[in-house]
Amino acid sequence: MDFFKKIKPLWDQQKFVCVGLDPDVQKIPSIIKKNHLSIKDQILQFNIDIIDQTWDLVCCYKPNAAFYEAHGTEGWEALLDVCDYIKFTYPKVPIILDAKRADIDSTNEGYTKAFFENLNVDAVTLHPYLGQQALETFLKIKEKMFFILVKTSNKGSDEFQNLKIGKKFLFEIVAENVANDWNKNKNCGVVVGATYPEELKSVRKIIGDIPILIPGVGAQGGSVEETIKAGRDSRNQGMIINSSRGIIYASSGSDFATAARRETEKLNGKIRKYL
Amino acid sequence: MDFFKKIKPLWDQQKFVCVGLDPDVQKIPSIIKKNHLSIKDQILQFNIDIIDQTWDLVCCYKPNAAFYEAHGTEGWEALLDVCDYIKFTYPKVPIILDAKRADIDSTNEGYTKAFFENLNVDAVTLHPYLGQQALETFLKIKEKMFFILVKTSNKGSDEFQNLKIGKKFLFEIVAENVANDWNKNKNCGVVVGATYPEELKSVRKIIGDIPILIPGVGAQGGSVEETIKAGRDSRNQGMIINSSRGIIYASSGSDFATAARRETEKLNGKIRKYL
Repeated sequence: MDFFKKIKPLWDQQKFVCVGLDPDVQKIPSIIKKNHLSIKDQILQFNIDIIDQTWDLVCCYKPNAAFYEAHGTEGWEALLDVCDYIKFTYPKVPIILDAKRADIDSTNEGYTKAFFENLNVDAVTLHPYLGQQALETFLKIKEKMFFILVKTSNKGSDEFQNLKIGKKFLFEIVAENVANDWNKNKNCGVVVGATYPEELKSVRKIIGDIPILIPGVGAQGGSVEETIKAGRDSRNQGMIINSSRGIIYASSGSDFATAARRETEKLNGKIRKYL
Repeated sequence: MDFFKKIKPLWDQQKFVCVGLDPDVQKIPSIIKKNHLSIKDQILQFNIDIIDQTWDLVCCYKPNAAFYEAHGTEGWEALLDVCDYIKFTYPKVPIILDAKRADIDSTNEGYTKAFFENLNVDAVTLHPYLGQQALETFLKIKEKMFFILVKTSNKGSDEFQNLKIGKKFLFEIVAENVANDWNKNKNCGVVVGATYPEELKSVRKIIGDIPILIPGVGAQGGSVEETIKAGRDSRNQGMIINSSRGIIYASSGSDFATAARRETEKLNGKIRKYL
């Protein structure tokens, strides 16, 4: 089942929260560590506990590859197991792998194998810098979804993204190209940080009802109210609002998973308030 | 030992070829496959045979992460073993991991752990789109080298890279910022495709003697003569000229490794002719 078929019923239930599964081994609660698990099993158990407590509240999960690659082979095994756990236990919840990849044409085939044969996730994030021609290796895969970085949530994202090309910002041109040219298979989304509501508004105007993955409302401090007002599509949907640290590290005690549920519910509540 | 200390003596010996270790399992010669090796061991054996035949001719090796990630955990293990093999057998030859990563600040720590603790390579390639502030997590590591994508070798790289900002192209602004701001620790290089000699010339003018990683002279068709004329620095050095497919798949027979040596010598010969 493709990404849209999975996410649409969840949006219809007013679920817009995406939980970022970014396991930092330093921050994994001691209740998990005290069982002398391997790094791989610590990461897996931490994720499973969070997922079991949040799956009915979210529109998707977004593991970030960096947190798994940090642990080499063990980390890659953990990522595979986490993806398998979600797919087999909660098959209606889609997975976006936040991998931020992009290489030249033929080389991208290595990544498509990694993400769609090996891990078999539903969607992946991509850098735009090499252009559509290089990324066609991804975009031609109709049943998968691709979120292109347009305006990133970090403080210094203006360095290139807000350069002016004529009367437009670079990030606006990226959004335009994605909407007008890249999206032939209706499998493109964009990434815009909640930390930039003005830019989010501008992107939504450019792309119509294309989905936006919106990180930055949690630890990074983006406003939920401004995010909703700027980010929703014409159907009051089309948003995937990610929080990672704000949810998964809500408590470092033995109640970490129920605390994650509480924070997810709280974020859901805020979102619904402004919808 | 840092990247510069490793590569400088090799440049002094007029070695500028970088062999791209991009193992495509479909193309691994049958002489290796007939031994019923695992995917991991096929990749490893193929690389070892190529490395043993070329190490004394090159200025570095550049494995591209995509070709390894394609095989999941096995691929990651193979990449680790290939890097270890080079480091322990030919410790004077530096390794650039062509991973083309870049995420927000804290998340990049996962990648620095993966590349410099787990794999412990000498250098890595990065996307510029998120800007210097996000990439400081990499750039602050003084003993490692970072090659920033400036003008990529693919056909469609003009889509964003050649947008005009005032009188300059975007790729020129990226090159300027890397040279003027990002390179405080003298650990930045740039990536410019041999397929764009005009752009290569322009970048060399902007960045002075900063090293350039130049892919695209092999299968992608870039001219060696134009590359040298446009790419060399004031000391007639500063280039890392990569060929992957043109060298490692020079023969599909049992002579694949000696054929790789022959192609590397041929490329070296052409380079020296135009220096």
